[in-house]
Amino acid sequence: MSTIKYLSQTEAINVDQELFNEYGFSVDQLMELAGLSVAISIVKSYSEQSFKDGTTLLVCGPGNNGGDGLVAARHLKLFGYKPVIHYPKQGKGQLFQNLVTQCLKMDITFISEHQQLNWNDITIVVDALFGFSYRPPVRAEFYDILSNLTKIKCPLVSVDIPSGWNVETGPSDDGGKTPVLQPDCLVSLTAPKQCATHFGGRFHWIGGRFVPPSLAKKYQLNLPNYEGTEQCLRIK
Amino acid sequence: MSTIKYLSQTEAINVDQELFNEYGFSVDQLMELAGLSVAISIVKSYSEQSFKDGTTLLVCGPGNNGGDGLVAARHLKLFGYKPVIHYPKQGKGQLFQNLVTQCLKMDITFISEHQQLNWNDITIVVDALFGFSYRPPVRAEFYDILSNLTKIKCPLVSVDIPSGWNVETGPSDDGGKTPVLQPDCLVSLTAPKQCATHFGGRFHWIGGRFVPPSLAKKYQLNLPNYEGTEQCLRIK
Repeated sequence: MSTIKYLSQTEAINVDQELFNEYGFSVDQLMELAGLSVAISIVKSYSEQSFKDGTTLLVCGPGNNGGDGLVAARHLKLFGYKPVIHYPKQGKGQLFQNLVTQCLKMDITFISEHQQLNWNDITIVVDALFGFSYRPPVRAEFYDILSNLTKIKCPLVSVDIPSGWNVETGPSDDGGKTPVLQPDCLVSLTAPKQCATHFGGRFHWIGGRFVPPSLAKKYQLNLPNYEGTEQCLRIK
Repeated sequence: MSTIKYLSQTEAINVDQELFNEYGFSVDQLMELAGLSVAISIVKSYSEQSFKDGTTLLVCGPGNNGGDGLVAARHLKLFGYKPVIHYPKQGKGQLFQNLVTQCLKMDITFISEHQQLNWNDITIVVDALFGFSYRPPVRAEFYDILSNLTKIKCPLVSVDIPSGWNVETGPSDDGGKTPVLQPDCLVSLTAPKQCATHFGGRFHWIGGRFVPPSLAKKYQLNLPNYEGTEQCLRIK
C-alpha cells in the first residue's frame, strides 16, 4: 500500500503553480477552500464550549498563508467562535484588502502589537504567519511575534507549516536566531510538507480538498481518502 | 419565534450586490462556497451507491447560476460522483473560462446538444440554468432544454430557483410558453426566494453559508442555525 507523500519545498511550489497556471484556479477560490478547511479542522480539534467561549487569536503574515488565516477567521466566526486577528503587515493587492474588509464587516477585531491583549481570555492561537515558500532565519520584524508564540499556554494551531520551521528539515537549528514553535495542531494544505514528519502535536489534519486526481497522480501524492463530503481528514 | 424570510426578487438582488460592494467578497469566493454547498446537498439527498454509479448531468446556464453548477460538478467529482456537463451558452469573462478549464482538467466531459446521451445511465439531473435575476418567458434558445428537463425520470435538483419559474410567484402561468419544472430537490442559496413556497419536492436545502450576521439582520433573513461546520441545512 502506498503511503502519503511528504512534499519538498520545490514540489510544494510546483503543485501550487500548476493549480493556478495549468488547472485555471484563482487564488480567491483555493484560499477560500483552504481557509474553510483550517476552520473546520480547528472546530473538530477544539470543540468544547470553553474553546468557543474564549477568544481565538489568529496571527496572520503578509502572504497567502496569512490569507488562509483571514478566511479561517471568517468561517470560525460563522461557526460560533470569537476570532480576533493580529495582522502586523498587510499583504499587497486587492485580494488581501478584500479579506480584511470581509472580516471587519463581520465584526472581527484587528488588534495591534501594542494593544493590551488579555491572554487569559485566549483559548486557541492560530499561526498563519509563513507558508511553504518560507526560508529561515526569520526576519527581524517577525522575531518577537514568533518568540511570543513559543510562550503561549493554550493550544497552538499552525496553518500548513509551523512558522519559522524549515519546510523540509523542520525546527530550525540556527542557534536561536529563529524561535521554534511546537504546535498542538497542524493543518497541512493539499499535502503535507517534509517538515511535518517532525510534528509532535496531537492533531494532524489534511485540508484543501481541491486537488485534481491527475495532479495528485503526477506528484504521486497518495492522498488518503476523505470521508463523504468532509473538507478535512485527520491523519494523526 | 421568527420564521425564515422568503426573499422578493429585488431583495435577492440587493443582498447579492451588498455582499460584493459592501462586504468586499469576490464572485470567485462566494461561487465556490455556493457550488460546494450544492454538491454537498446533492450527496446528502442522493447518497445511495446507485446514484454515484450513474451519471450526474448538470445543465448550466450562462450566468452565475450556471457558474454555481460548474463548481458543484467539480466537487461532485471529488466526492466520487460521475458528473457530465451540458453548457449550451458559455458565460462571458475569465471566471467562466477558468471554471470550464478546471472541469475539463478534472476529466469532466462537456456534452453538446446533439450528442447522443444515454439517458438510462443518468441518475441525477441538476438544473443550474437560471437564477434569481431571471424573468419569464424563457428565451427561445432555452425552450427545448427546459422542455426536456420536464420529461426526465430521475430526480431533478434545482440550484436556487427552479429554472423558468417566476422568482416570486413560482411556476409560470404563461400559457405554455415556459415549460414548468418540478424539482425533487431545491438548494436555496443564502436565503430562499418567494417562489420556494411553491416547491413540492422532497428535499429543500439552504446553502451558501457565508452571510454576515449584520446583513442577515438588515434583511431580517431569520436564517435557521446551521449545525456545527455543515455547509448546508435541510429545511424540508
